[in-house]
Amino acid sequence: MDPIFSDRITDVPRSFIREILKATADESIISFAGGLPNRKLFPVEEIRKAVLFILEHDAGDVLQYSTTEGYPKLRQWIADRYKKNAGVTIAPEQILITSGSQQGLDLLGKVLLNDHEHVGIEEPGYLGAIQAFSLYRPHFHTAPLEWDGINLSAFEDTVRRQQVKLFYAVPNFQNPSGITYSTAKRVAAAEILKGSSTLFVEDDPYGELRFLGERKPSFYELVPENTILLGSFSKIFAPSFRIGWIVAAGPLMEKLVIAKQATDLHTNYFGQRLLYRYLEENDLDIHIQRIRDAYGRQRTAMVRAIQENFPPSITISEPEGGMFLWAQLPEGMSALKLFDKALARKVAFVPGDPFYIGRQHTNTLRLNFSCLDEESITRGIQILGQLLKEEMGR
Amino acid sequence: MDPIFSDRITDVPRSFIREILKATADESIISFAGGLPNRKLFPVEEIRKAVLFILEHDAGDVLQYSTTEGYPKLRQWIADRYKKNAGVTIAPEQILITSGSQQGLDLLGKVLLNDHEHVGIEEPGYLGAIQAFSLYRPHFHTAPLEWDGINLSAFEDTVRRQQVKLFYAVPNFQNPSGITYSTAKRVAAAEILKGSSTLFVEDDPYGELRFLGERKPSFYELVPENTILLGSFSKIFAPSFRIGWIVAAGPLMEKLVIAKQATDLHTNYFGQRLLYRYLEENDLDIHIQRIRDAYGRQRTAMVRAIQENFPPSITISEPEGGMFLWAQLPEGMSALKLFDKALARKVAFVPGDPFYIGRQHTNTLRLNFSCLDEESITRGIQILGQLLKEEMGR
Repeated sequence: MDPIFSDRITDVPRSFIREILKATADESIISFAGGLPNRKLFPVEEIRKAVLFILEHDAGDVLQYSTTEGYPKLRQWIADRYKKNAGVTIAPEQILITSGSQQGLDLLGKVLLNDHEHVGIEEPGYLGAIQAFSLYRPHFHTAPLEWDGINLSAFEDTVRRQQVKLFYAVPNFQNPSGITYSTAKRVAAAEILKGSSTLFVEDDPYGELRFLGERKPSFYELVPENTILLGSFSKIFAPSFRIGWIVAAGPLMEKLVIAKQATDLHTNYFGQRLLYRYLEENDLDIHIQRIRDAYGRQRTAMVRAIQENFPPSITISEPEGGMFLWAQLPEGMSALKLFDKALARKVAFVPGDPFYIGRQHTNTLRLNFSCLDEESITRGIQILGQLLKEEMGR
Repeated sequence: MDPIFSDRITDVPRSFIREILKATADESIISFAGGLPNRKLFPVEEIRKAVLFILEHDAGDVLQYSTTEGYPKLRQWIADRYKKNAGVTIAPEQILITSGSQQGLDLLGKVLLNDHEHVGIEEPGYLGAIQAFSLYRPHFHTAPLEWDGINLSAFEDTVRRQQVKLFYAVPNFQNPSGITYSTAKRVAAAEILKGSSTLFVEDDPYGELRFLGERKPSFYELVPENTILLGSFSKIFAPSFRIGWIVAAGPLMEKLVIAKQATDLHTNYFGQRLLYRYLEENDLDIHIQRIRDAYGRQRTAMVRAIQENFPPSITISEPEGGMFLWAQLPEGMSALKLFDKALARKVAFVPGDPFYIGRQHTNTLRLNFSCLDEESITRGIQILGQLLKEEMGR
């Protein structure tokens, strides 16, 4: 029997990236297409010790069902870190542990969105957010990203005129673009949000991975009343455990807990306990510094190789952190067509298309630098550069 | 700013059980209210070995992001077990690993239910299913459970007249009632389903925990075209990891994978790998037999104590497996009022109310026997029996 599906599921875009990753699984390909943290940097030995400890001291509890909100000590640790890093006071009760920050998006859609309500998002935007919110059938409104952050007048239009209920953004080292909002744009955007009915969903999975420049104030610091903050351990610890969190308060937190309970009861508790033990015994800052150093070197290798090999009419985002760099080809050139030709030369990237809503053959592309060593990055960019020169008739 | 919530979240019942569990957290209380597997039976040493193995041999992979569908070898193992236990051929591609079987319910709601569509459920029914489906705003139709399974004419009415899109049931050792459908009722219900447009959601978290009587055929065996099967490792391994699965096929599986990806990318992969290693190195049947023996002894103690201490007008379900027993008080007596009085004597259970849709002061209650030793069970039932005698004026 073929069931008739819900309207909502037919609205969700298939993951184009998934298809691309399948095409690039071949090991002889230099792939800038991935979006993974570098597995060589996982703290394996420390994790081993943490597991042995929790199993020796509290096995009956760490293997049992647990509370929907998450392990209290882990929530306290996250609250303490906000205090330390940003001077922000957040109570542990304001933190809900989620199954990756992807689940945070699903829960926000669940408790906040009725069909046809209005949601704003950066363009280009994070595909996972488009997918998660699509399940709740919103009208999307986009505001273009510029090299220093959101286009303010388009952003203001989504807040003031469209009165979007949520605006989703990744202000630090965005996926896909690697772009970071300038402090000026943050302050201006926060002013627009103040007193509005829009909740700004500030997704910050990469914020700790800054290898250049100065830390910028978060929207949560600038306009807490209108901000929901999402965080994740996937890029600073390990993604396999699927542990992220939402910062929210009051009635919104209550609703999120009800929705979370109906969705999966709680996030895997063994992982939460293991992670907390790791955090208790190790200095996360030292570990993060190791990641920053590696990604920073790889980013430098990529930018240098681009400067030496790409035609100068191609502009790039020059990220200050994170895992991605964005390149813009001359107007009218299709990154999707370029992808096929690059793949024939064993180099892969993600064409910009999936990061836009309903646009094809865009002239942008995403390059990941977290997973390849400097030599492979340089070689891959040289091959891409050669192809681009041929394509652009130089 | 207080956001305006979605309509769907206001439809979800708060977990009454959650509140009850808070009230019974006091260690001096003999609690039959829980719904947890017995932590003394977790295979701690075997889990320790499995973790050490996967970290030593494949850390880079076991800590990384993984595929939405789940670990292929684990899916194959589940398929093989269906073959071995029930002679059913299921391809690994028909198995989607979920974050507990609770997530299976959320995903089914997501891909199948539009607002106001019709869903059938047993009465009393599993609260988690009522919560999960409530998020998709269906009209619920109930069919009463009798001591040998679903009331067939009520079930037929939901399928033929209401044409429910889904009918949710736990045919083995149901939560809350401990009731198991007889083979005759399974065959008759399967006949009703054949050729209908109803999908029977067969949730089977306890099926392996049979300590009395003979295995019965599953709906999946009787009417595979109309059945979606859910399974879980929570009760036969450990719940902390949140690992369950859905058996589905064709276009439904495709949609479930899209929904799963948008919801949490994938289920915690470290847990999947650890679990698979455990299954590879250990005989799960021996472990399950240990659980069956313990729960069987505890169930026997409970039934015997009830026979010796409860007034004879109280009927019970006498479960053949699982973790719960159901008691029915005389007509008109409120289990909720009894709960308060029992708590004052340091004994707790779950009054039936939350397992019904929109009914209060029902005369039924759930007693859990998986977590207490035989002596505590006997003592707790004696206290309850004394209270019941006083209440019933004898």
